[in-house]
Amino acid sequence: MPATLSALRAGTGRRLLAAFRGEQTDRVPVWFMRQAGRALPEYRALRADLDLVSMTHRPELVAEVTAQPVRRYGVDAAILFSDIVSPLEAIGVELAIRPGVGPVIASPLRTPADLRVLRPFEPDLDAPWLGQAVRLCTAELDVPVIGFVGGPFTLASYLVEGGPSKAQEHTRALMLSDERTWRALLDALCDIALASAAAQVAAGADAVQVFDSWIGSLSPDHYERYVLPVVRRLFDGLAGLGVPRVYFGVGTGHLLELMARAQPDVLGVDWRVPIELARARVPATIALQGNLDPTICLAPWQIVEAEALSLLGRAPARGYVFNLGHGVLPATSPATMQRLVELVHSQSVRNE
Amino acid sequence: MPATLSALRAGTGRRLLAAFRGEQTDRVPVWFMRQAGRALPEYRALRADLDLVSMTHRPELVAEVTAQPVRRYGVDAAILFSDIVSPLEAIGVELAIRPGVGPVIASPLRTPADLRVLRPFEPDLDAPWLGQAVRLCTAELDVPVIGFVGGPFTLASYLVEGGPSKAQEHTRALMLSDERTWRALLDALCDIALASAAAQVAAGADAVQVFDSWIGSLSPDHYERYVLPVVRRLFDGLAGLGVPRVYFGVGTGHLLELMARAQPDVLGVDWRVPIELARARVPATIALQGNLDPTICLAPWQIVEAEALSLLGRAPARGYVFNLGHGVLPATSPATMQRLVELVHSQSVRNE
Repeated sequence: MPATLSALRAGTGRRLLAAFRGEQTDRVPVWFMRQAGRALPEYRALRADLDLVSMTHRPELVAEVTAQPVRRYGVDAAILFSDIVSPLEAIGVELAIRPGVGPVIASPLRTPADLRVLRPFEPDLDAPWLGQAVRLCTAELDVPVIGFVGGPFTLASYLVEGGPSKAQEHTRALMLSDERTWRALLDALCDIALASAAAQVAAGADAVQVFDSWIGSLSPDHYERYVLPVVRRLFDGLAGLGVPRVYFGVGTGHLLELMARAQPDVLGVDWRVPIELARARVPATIALQGNLDPTICLAPWQIVEAEALSLLGRAPARGYVFNLGHGVLPATSPATMQRLVELVHSQSVRNE
Repeated sequence: MPATLSALRAGTGRRLLAAFRGEQTDRVPVWFMRQAGRALPEYRALRADLDLVSMTHRPELVAEVTAQPVRRYGVDAAILFSDIVSPLEAIGVELAIRPGVGPVIASPLRTPADLRVLRPFEPDLDAPWLGQAVRLCTAELDVPVIGFVGGPFTLASYLVEGGPSKAQEHTRALMLSDERTWRALLDALCDIALASAAAQVAAGADAVQVFDSWIGSLSPDHYERYVLPVVRRLFDGLAGLGVPRVYFGVGTGHLLELMARAQPDVLGVDWRVPIELARARVPATIALQGNLDPTICLAPWQIVEAEALSLLGRAPARGYVFNLGHGVLPATSPATMQRLVELVHSQSVRNE
C-alpha cells in the first residue's frame, strides 16, 4: 500500500469505524447505501451488456465498481458491490437480478421439500470470487470496506414469493401456517449469511451490514415471534468476526426497540423516523446510521442542503454515521451526492 | 324498504355509525376494506370480461358487487365498489385500472401545464352513474353504505408517477422542488374529492372514508409541511356533509398524531401499530378502525381466530370498528372472512 493511502487509511479511514464504535470523530463520516452502481455513468459504461450476476463473478469488475463512488464522492466507506441473493445463486438457486425489478427466483420455495436447495454455503468452493473481490477492494482503497449479507426474513421473502413483492403474502402465510418449515428456512438462510460474512471478513472486510429490507411489513408481535430469534442468532454469530455489525431495514419505525434486542453495534434508520426520536428509543450503546430521504437528493441543491443541515443538527454528536434512509435512487445526479459529502465533511461536530 | 330490512337498518345498521361516533355498541361492528370484489367468486363470475372502469359506469352492477359481501359475510357496512381514481377518469384523465397492478395513467402529470387536465368535477354531469349506484345501494341494503374518495397525496402520486410506485420519486421531487405547482395539484385533487364525497352523501352514503394509502412513505416533517394542510381542508369540507369521516393510510405509524390533526371522526390504522398503542396516541375523541394484518387471513382458521381474539382483547371498548389493516387479499378464502365476522359478532363488548 503506498504511503499516502496508508496515511489516509489511518486518518479518514478510521472515521467510520470510530463512529460505528460509538466514538466521537473529527467529522461526521458519510457513505450511501447503493452508492456503487445505478446512478454512476462510469458504472453504466462498465456494465454495458453484462448482467449483474455475471458481474459479481468477476472480482476485478466488482473492485472497480466498489471503488468508483469512493473516488468520485470522497465517502468514508466503500460497500462491496454485490446483491443479497448472491450467496443463494452461488449454492445453485436459479435466479436472475432484473434491472428495475430485483431478484427473480425461477422456482419459488413453497414446501418443506423445496428447502433442499438451500445447502450449506462454502464460499471458498462455491464463490471464490467473493473473497478475491474483497481482497482487491481492501488492497486498493484507503477507506473501510463494508461487507454485507441479506437478513433471513428478506431473503426468505424473495425465495418464497419468487421475487420482490408488496404484501409478501406467500411468505407470511408460510410463516403463520407452518412454523417448523419457517424456522428451518430462516435457519438455513442465517447459516448462509454467517458463512458469507465470515468469508468477507476473512478477506479483509472492516464491517458487515445486514440488509433486512422488508421486515417493516411485519407487526411488532410477528417480528418478535417469527423473525427476531434468528436475527439474534445471526448477530451473535457475527460478533465472533470481531468487526462492527450494522442492522438495517426499511419502514421499521415500529420495530426499532425489537431490532435493538439483536444487539447490533449500529442500527440503520430509514427517513420515516426523525433521527432524534430514534436516538431516544434505541439504547445509547448502539450507534445510529441514516437517514436522509433519498428522494430529497432529486430536488435542487438548496433543498438538499437545508435538509442535510437539519439532519446534522438533530443527529447525535457521537456514534453517528450520515447516510440515506434507503439506497441512492437511479435518477440521482452524482454531482448532488458529491456536494452532499463535501457538506457533511465541512461541518464541525458538536461537542457534547 | 321491506319491514324486515327497515328493522335491520335500525338495529345492526346503527352499530357502525354509533361506533364511528365513539359510542359503545352491543357488538363490535366489522367490515373489511376491499370486501367487495377480487376475493369473491360471485364477483369474478359477474365481472367476466368487463374492465373495472366500465363496471363503475353501470350502477346496477356496482350495487350488486357492493351488496355481495354484505350478503355473504354479514358485515355491518357496505363500501361502494369503486376506485379512488374514478373521479379522475370521469373528468377525462386517460387511465386504466389494470388487474394486479392498479391505476395506470396514460400521460403522467409533470409540469404546471399538465395540471390543466384537472378541471372541476361535476358529478351530476361527469358521472351520473355515481349517485345512481349509491341510491341503488342504500335502497337495497340494510347496513350503512360507506362512500369513499382518494387522499390528495395518493391521487397525486398516481397522476405524477403514471401508476403505482415504490418510491414515488417523481411525486416527491415535484413536492420538494416546485411548491406552487404541488399546492395547485393537491388543491385541485382536494376539490375533486370534496365534489365526489358530496355527491355520494347526497345520494345517501352514510359515511365517507378517505383512502390516503401512500402517505406512509413521507417523513413526519414532509407530511406536515406538504400534505397535512390540504388534508385539513379536505376534512373541514367533509364536515359540512354531516356524516362520519374516516381517514386511512398504510404504514402510517409515524404519522398518527399528525393525521389526527386533520380531525377525522375515525382513524384507520394498519397492522404495524398495535391497536392499544394507537389508542394511547390518538385523541380519545377520534374513533379507531382496524387492524388485523390481511395476510393473517391466509393462514389456517385457528391462527385467524387467535389473532382476531387478541386484537379484540386489546381494542378499545367503545369507538372501535373491527377491520383489516389494509384490503382483503385476492387469495383470501371467503369462508374465512365469513367466520371472522361471526367470531367478532359472537364476542361480548367489555364494559368500561
